[in-house]
Amino acid sequence: MPMRTVSVVGIGAGDPDQLTLQAIKAIQRASVFFVIDKGAQPSGLVDARIAMLETHKGAVNFTVVEIPDPPRDRTPSNYQHAVTQWHAQRADVLAAAITAHLKDGETGAFLVWGDPALYDSTLRVFELMLESGNATFEYEVIPGITSIQALTARHRIPLNRIGEPIHITTGRRLREGLPVGVTNAVVMLDAHCAFTEVADREGGEWDVWWGGNLGTVDEEIIAGRVGDVDDAITAARSRVKEQAGWIMDTYLLRRRDEPDTT
Amino acid sequence: MPMRTVSVVGIGAGDPDQLTLQAIKAIQRASVFFVIDKGAQPSGLVDARIAMLETHKGAVNFTVVEIPDPPRDRTPSNYQHAVTQWHAQRADVLAAAITAHLKDGETGAFLVWGDPALYDSTLRVFELMLESGNATFEYEVIPGITSIQALTARHRIPLNRIGEPIHITTGRRLREGLPVGVTNAVVMLDAHCAFTEVADREGGEWDVWWGGNLGTVDEEIIAGRVGDVDDAITAARSRVKEQAGWIMDTYLLRRRDEPDTT
Repeated sequence: MPMRTVSVVGIGAGDPDQLTLQAIKAIQRASVFFVIDKGAQPSGLVDARIAMLETHKGAVNFTVVEIPDPPRDRTPSNYQHAVTQWHAQRADVLAAAITAHLKDGETGAFLVWGDPALYDSTLRVFELMLESGNATFEYEVIPGITSIQALTARHRIPLNRIGEPIHITTGRRLREGLPVGVTNAVVMLDAHCAFTEVADREGGEWDVWWGGNLGTVDEEIIAGRVGDVDDAITAARSRVKEQAGWIMDTYLLRRRDEPDTT
Repeated sequence: MPMRTVSVVGIGAGDPDQLTLQAIKAIQRASVFFVIDKGAQPSGLVDARIAMLETHKGAVNFTVVEIPDPPRDRTPSNYQHAVTQWHAQRADVLAAAITAHLKDGETGAFLVWGDPALYDSTLRVFELMLESGNATFEYEVIPGITSIQALTARHRIPLNRIGEPIHITTGRRLREGLPVGVTNAVVMLDAHCAFTEVADREGGEWDVWWGGNLGTVDEEIIAGRVGDVDDAITAARSRVKEQAGWIMDTYLLRRRDEPDTT
């Protein structure tokens, strides 16, 4: 019996030219696209995905199914528990949507900004759906260019120093302190400019390479010594948010080899 | 006066369908492709790039310039110093090749496996070239899908646990011990299966998600508890190397939340 098939497709960080051939082929195989309606999600982000579909769609007509996102507690006492609960609710609504809108033998797709493996809940929700048995389907994952890669490409810098590790973390974790020995860190999901405190907390002199709304018309990038460029980055964040209606930013922090003694 | 322009293009981890539209457009703009001849480099890796050029080339005919790589001390007493010296030598031969083979107003390209920002020396060598003044050109960087992303896509797993950081490191560093608190690590450039010792060194129970020659016809993936799958991974490494003539592998290590007390 033919199964339902679902593709989870990474579509890059914002620039439609960051789509891979693999992603385009997956889009062309699919006839149903599921879009999670985040309510407050800026319409520009939905429109950009629809534009990609129009540009790259296959011979078959496609339909777009909007799925309302369950409400989420944004200020929980226990962060992990709240997220786990919210994933379980999301799994239920996704399973219902797939069962209702995707026939056996048909192919559907979820388009995910960046890469589905990086700070995105879709794959976790898929595991939950299949564990619950509320929906049955086969699925594949297509990698996509992340905002980290867009950041380093625009700044034309390597992510790592020679032979050194790379640490990818969140604004929340950065404020709790970096692991001992980590002097090269990428920060995502930081709405509160935690980098401004890094030198005070970790010691030494730090440089920052920052980018906002990378790959879009509103993109801005700034690089320099933390302390010198803090105000410029704060101003750029406001400016980008004002222009685009939303802001997604990421940055690389790196401690200087030699402490600045001047 | 029109300048020389050079693109540093990430071409993905092995699967030609991992090329982005951005990379294809950069290939189409270029008329000269520089290939660093690593001597012992398996011919399959060069052929794969030539095949990409033939598939995606623009209207203009292209030429391929092979650049002999300076010899490199593979067992140096000081690793960082040896690498720095080797980069300086590489900058000299690249500058000479660009000056000789790329006219003003022309566009050249370097095709880099994976992403130019991740454990690749090209961008560092470019900085050295421009600092030395031995060659003048403008350049841009195009991100590419890395083997890490190919790995997580094939295993269909998130790179991070909920809200947790990700640590990307090398086999060399893993053997020196992970930073305190790091329980989720991607390892690259490990020719000696350092994961087999991770539980002994770090304590706890660890799972591994491994992939070799990802995105190629010789791809193999294995996942399971470290200790259970060590032999299977060692055997797969040999098998892939035998078939392909080369092996490039990467893996994700993750400590289990609850110590296994059975």
